[in-house]
Amino acid sequence: MSLLAAITRPTLLISERRCRANIQAMADKAKRNQLRFRPHFKTHQHAVVGSWFRDAGVNAITVSSVSMAEDCVRDGWKDITIAFPFNIREIEAVNRLAAKVNINILIADQNILPTLVAQLDKTLGVFIKIDTGYGRSGFHPEHEEKLIRTIVDDLAIGGLKFKGFLSHPGHSYAAQHKDDIVRIHKAAMRWMLQLKSAYHPQYPQLELSLGDTPCCSIMEDFRGITEFRPGNFVYYDLVQAALGACTPENIGVVMACPVVVGAKESAKKLLIHGGAVHFSKDHLIDPITASPFYGKVVSWQEDKNDWGGIRDGMQLVKLSQEHGTVNGDSSQLQTYKAGDLIFILPIHSCLNANLMRLENTLIV
Amino acid sequence: MSLLAAITRPTLLISERRCRANIQAMADKAKRNQLRFRPHFKTHQHAVVGSWFRDAGVNAITVSSVSMAEDCVRDGWKDITIAFPFNIREIEAVNRLAAKVNINILIADQNILPTLVAQLDKTLGVFIKIDTGYGRSGFHPEHEEKLIRTIVDDLAIGGLKFKGFLSHPGHSYAAQHKDDIVRIHKAAMRWMLQLKSAYHPQYPQLELSLGDTPCCSIMEDFRGITEFRPGNFVYYDLVQAALGACTPENIGVVMACPVVVGAKESAKKLLIHGGAVHFSKDHLIDPITASPFYGKVVSWQEDKNDWGGIRDGMQLVKLSQEHGTVNGDSSQLQTYKAGDLIFILPIHSCLNANLMRLENTLIV
Repeated sequence: MSLLAAITRPTLLISERRCRANIQAMADKAKRNQLRFRPHFKTHQHAVVGSWFRDAGVNAITVSSVSMAEDCVRDGWKDITIAFPFNIREIEAVNRLAAKVNINILIADQNILPTLVAQLDKTLGVFIKIDTGYGRSGFHPEHEEKLIRTIVDDLAIGGLKFKGFLSHPGHSYAAQHKDDIVRIHKAAMRWMLQLKSAYHPQYPQLELSLGDTPCCSIMEDFRGITEFRPGNFVYYDLVQAALGACTPENIGVVMACPVVVGAKESAKKLLIHGGAVHFSKDHLIDPITASPFYGKVVSWQEDKNDWGGIRDGMQLVKLSQEHGTVNGDSSQLQTYKAGDLIFILPIHSCLNANLMRLENTLIV
Repeated sequence: MSLLAAITRPTLLISERRCRANIQAMADKAKRNQLRFRPHFKTHQHAVVGSWFRDAGVNAITVSSVSMAEDCVRDGWKDITIAFPFNIREIEAVNRLAAKVNINILIADQNILPTLVAQLDKTLGVFIKIDTGYGRSGFHPEHEEKLIRTIVDDLAIGGLKFKGFLSHPGHSYAAQHKDDIVRIHKAAMRWMLQLKSAYHPQYPQLELSLGDTPCCSIMEDFRGITEFRPGNFVYYDLVQAALGACTPENIGVVMACPVVVGAKESAKKLLIHGGAVHFSKDHLIDPITASPFYGKVVSWQEDKNDWGGIRDGMQLVKLSQEHGTVNGDSSQLQTYKAGDLIFILPIHSCLNANLMRLENTLIV
């Protein structure tokens, strides 16, 4: 039975070739910049994909929750940064992990310091979260300069291991143009290097950690930074292609969905099994119709056991819980009938892969 | 340790009192109308919540996927309608289920008929999907009158069990006003009863199945219909409250999320652990600010071990993968600090509960 014949339900196909190439390109960039490559694992959350990172020489990783860190410890990872403002309700769970492997956490609210000093395992590394312009969390390097100094001092006084400064310039995802990404990256670099200048004399082991897929994909200069933490790049998606962080060909995952209702003359659409519980509701806006869409259709190349290019004009335009609606030209739609599979590039692979979980993925 | 002290991560709290009341109200309405109550289980997907339906006398249910049907068969349900256009790739899985329990499926594309005739277990019931105005799938009772007749005949010729007509007037979710829901329900009833008149002489066992939470909650008259299939109503959510299908007090679930960054003077917001992987990206639009929001904050009543009313002015206004941002007045925000829990009513409980899965829910 062919690969496709075995697919009966919405399935996330992961292209080993594309993902390994994405990983290698980022590993090479890290090497050129003498950076530690600490990829974020929140996108794939997949042990086999994790092994491809190991093959590329990665031994330090990033996650965005304690439960993800627990999964990665079970998978054998021994150096993990939990890049999320520390939740003191999880202090026991984090201490249990720190007893086994190297764990770094993030402080983004100074009020948790007394709890950390009193209860946190002192072998953990603590990064101070810096807001380099995204505005989601962290301390502003200029407006909160004194507060940052107080936190650094209090960490030392409390016997905690001050590891350095960490930032996520996530506003790069909202860039309208590549120039915006250049500007965001340069500003983030400048703020981080200023902090290094200020604290390096006292803390020569100080680390600077930066990371977001658009900047890490597009920019070349990371001199002075210790490590970068891109995550989405392993799969990329249509958002990243729209930003210019990748080409559509670099996108490492595609959804294979059963067509359940073929095109009718009276309604130029297909109905598929593939809804919000598979794709997520993240969308892009079509520049011509100004309407949201949730994915783009690609062809399937049976001889290569791989997908091909985007079928222009076909889009996943509606989602309910389990249903998806694909529109397009009649001539395109007529090539699909109920029982066929249709292949759709995701808008946001992080949410898509999280929904599909391991049991609904297939490596091709 | 109190209930709340044990919560360390985003958790969906399910109020047994509210959910049982929602179930009972719908069971009573079914009884008044001499309807079979065949609730949709796609919203809760939870064995314990399922047992509350059993307690209310329910023994026939609806699901939206074969995998959900498999779960429900494991939970002991013996009469299940898979209310999704039949996916012929799952024919073997469905036949396996039909060997154990009563299963009904839905036909929404006449081209799958030869496959059904050749391969489907003949004990299965087949509903013909009728489009009563939603436009997502199904046959139009007027424009496709002849096609419907052909399908009914072909089912009989092929030895398949024609069960009746099924419709989901899901356009009720987009209603702007209660009057729209009244209009949608009356139109759906009219179409369905017309079909009954046409086919009842030949098929006296013919069933009519309708279902969507707004119509089933708001309308009283279902005379002539065999069964209704509301699903969302067990939990309800802010969408249903906005439609007038429930009051905020009827909403049976709330998210408990750890606050990870308290309010700063300079930024009137809280950061919480609770993001798109917990809430989904479904949103409502605030009528005053015209901005999207992803949830509303309620108070917690420690003495009652239950949540209270909505804290006006506080909203979940931004979501990334794991992070949520809550805004509000300074005086409200100051009552939360890092490490506290915050309680948030969901926009769309179906997607929210699907994301939280059993392992991240708690019955209160």
